[in-house]
Amino acid sequence: MAQDLAALVGAIGPLDANSMEQARSRQARLTKPPGSLGVLEDVAVRLAGVAGCCPPPVPFPAAVAIFAGDHGVHAQGVTPWPQEVTAQMVANFLAGGAAINALAGQVGAHVVVVDVGVAGPVPSSPALVHRRVRPGTRDLSVEAALTRQEVLAAVGVGADVARALVDQGYRCLATGDMGIANTTASAALISAFTGRFARTVTGRGTGVDDATWRHKVQIVERAIALHRPDPDDPIGVLAALGGLEHAAITGYILAGAAARVPVVLDGVIAGSAALAAQVLAPDALDACFAGHRSTERGHAVALEHLGMRALVDLELRLGEGTGAVLALPLVQAAARALRDMATFDSAGVTAASAASLGDGDPL
Amino acid sequence: MAQDLAALVGAIGPLDANSMEQARSRQARLTKPPGSLGVLEDVAVRLAGVAGCCPPPVPFPAAVAIFAGDHGVHAQGVTPWPQEVTAQMVANFLAGGAAINALAGQVGAHVVVVDVGVAGPVPSSPALVHRRVRPGTRDLSVEAALTRQEVLAAVGVGADVARALVDQGYRCLATGDMGIANTTASAALISAFTGRFARTVTGRGTGVDDATWRHKVQIVERAIALHRPDPDDPIGVLAALGGLEHAAITGYILAGAAARVPVVLDGVIAGSAALAAQVLAPDALDACFAGHRSTERGHAVALEHLGMRALVDLELRLGEGTGAVLALPLVQAAARALRDMATFDSAGVTAASAASLGDGDPL
Repeated sequence: MAQDLAALVGAIGPLDANSMEQARSRQARLTKPPGSLGVLEDVAVRLAGVAGCCPPPVPFPAAVAIFAGDHGVHAQGVTPWPQEVTAQMVANFLAGGAAINALAGQVGAHVVVVDVGVAGPVPSSPALVHRRVRPGTRDLSVEAALTRQEVLAAVGVGADVARALVDQGYRCLATGDMGIANTTASAALISAFTGRFARTVTGRGTGVDDATWRHKVQIVERAIALHRPDPDDPIGVLAALGGLEHAAITGYILAGAAARVPVVLDGVIAGSAALAAQVLAPDALDACFAGHRSTERGHAVALEHLGMRALVDLELRLGEGTGAVLALPLVQAAARALRDMATFDSAGVTAASAASLGDGDPL
Repeated sequence: MAQDLAALVGAIGPLDANSMEQARSRQARLTKPPGSLGVLEDVAVRLAGVAGCCPPPVPFPAAVAIFAGDHGVHAQGVTPWPQEVTAQMVANFLAGGAAINALAGQVGAHVVVVDVGVAGPVPSSPALVHRRVRPGTRDLSVEAALTRQEVLAAVGVGADVARALVDQGYRCLATGDMGIANTTASAALISAFTGRFARTVTGRGTGVDDATWRHKVQIVERAIALHRPDPDDPIGVLAALGGLEHAAITGYILAGAAARVPVVLDGVIAGSAALAAQVLAPDALDACFAGHRSTERGHAVALEHLGMRALVDLELRLGEGTGAVLALPLVQAAARALRDMATFDSAGVTAASAASLGDGDPL
């Protein structure tokens, strides 16, 4: 499986500089003040680099894959939610009753649910992708959460799901996750990859009180002290601290980038998985867009380390892919504007006199 | 026409408190951690208050009305764009080549173009709403831009357009505008309504250089000193400083609120028009959502004065309604989640133990 990972990483190339230059040049001729679409102009240029053509296709249809897994660290009391809620929410996704179903339905995204490591029974449904690597991780605060082989298997699951979606015609991949206690694993991963203190990267997850939060910070500190993770060995970091859904999302990002399909990241779980992907294949992150910024404090740290600006910033902290799917219309609109807008010449619109046209930045 | 305005204002009532309370109660039972949809939960509660029922309908289909007008202050050299670009862009909207056409197309919003005060010839098109009150305003830096009667006529145009869209079945109204030099008028309006200095509320518009920006600030200062506008007389403020598109958007907001249809505001032009609407009918603003925050510096001041938080914040400064339409999927998703999500009971999902569930705010 290590060879599979090497092949996957080897298939990832840089953005196409020529297409990006064409996109910048085209932006300047469209009937709008230069730069006036703000961040969307950068998104469109990067989409051209991912697709390798200009204008790039509108990234549609889109799918969101929800990778579900359980966490041995749940035993440490880091969350008020019982572990069986992971499996219950898998059933809720399959029944169409969760937030991600509502939001994905609104933006026209297809939902795929993947059991990559739920601890208990899940509904037997043809709509569920059964790829359980093991029934939850071990407790990261007392031993390695996973073996390296288990990490590679979960990375392979994520990559397979991304490839299958691309084969089915999806042209934009959003990340999603479900796993009670997975913000604890995310905080540990972010601490390991960025070197920041546990208290700086550990948040309140689904909403814990002060005492539980302090306990959660101590658990993360204990895990970092126990494993002394090496950030240059991302598979080792994922084995020590990760969840199976984190490893799967790492593989999903890599395979999306290899297929040259844009990947829209959800919140802190995706952000911590992206840190692993960044070490494995830095170019992969150029195909990724930060869908939103979660209130989970580690997420801002991860985004800063990744050099990413979130598209949606509305204090969500739900996971499931909700923040990623909310950003899909923005990513698609960016491509649509670049593709469909008229130029000054074609529309017969007079351009501004260049002499007094500044860069438009606010003072 | 003053009676028309009084009747319009009289038709605007407060949000329905009972529906909002039902929405809050429903939010708490849905299968997600309490508050985890962040700002979208507040949006959904307010939509229930606007609609007067819970769950509120998803605000769909949506339309964006682009009110186009010219500005006498253009003669003062406040922008590098020639005045004829207003009419040229009207033609571009009608031909489908502008940014707003691309973005509205992506999110499924209908585009309506209204000539409420363009200075020159516009295409004769059945798709253009011909309601020109006068061919551009007078120069606000040397005389009143409009008479009170002209303001009331333009307010009536905006109200008529909103009513017509609601009659046609649109259930969400986005604001849009086109008018070369209209950020100068917006800055003057914001200074008048908020009492802030011209240099604090005057931005670079479509992107002017330092010298043009300083000149623009002086023009706004001169206008404020000349007219000494009374913020408690919003029709007088609009007459002294406004554009015809500002007055029309004020009427559009009022009529949307009266029809109990949510109104999604675009950037600084809508923000300055909303300040007038707020004085005329404070309840009207409760039906409004700030679609985005523009980089135009006066817009942040206007939003603060209105007590609004923008849904999209991506450094756009284009106008036309682009920021408003980008927010439509977010507003619609908020309603969709409240309407479609399962409850803990119905989905068989175990709720968290309340004892250790805090309020979820980051530290």
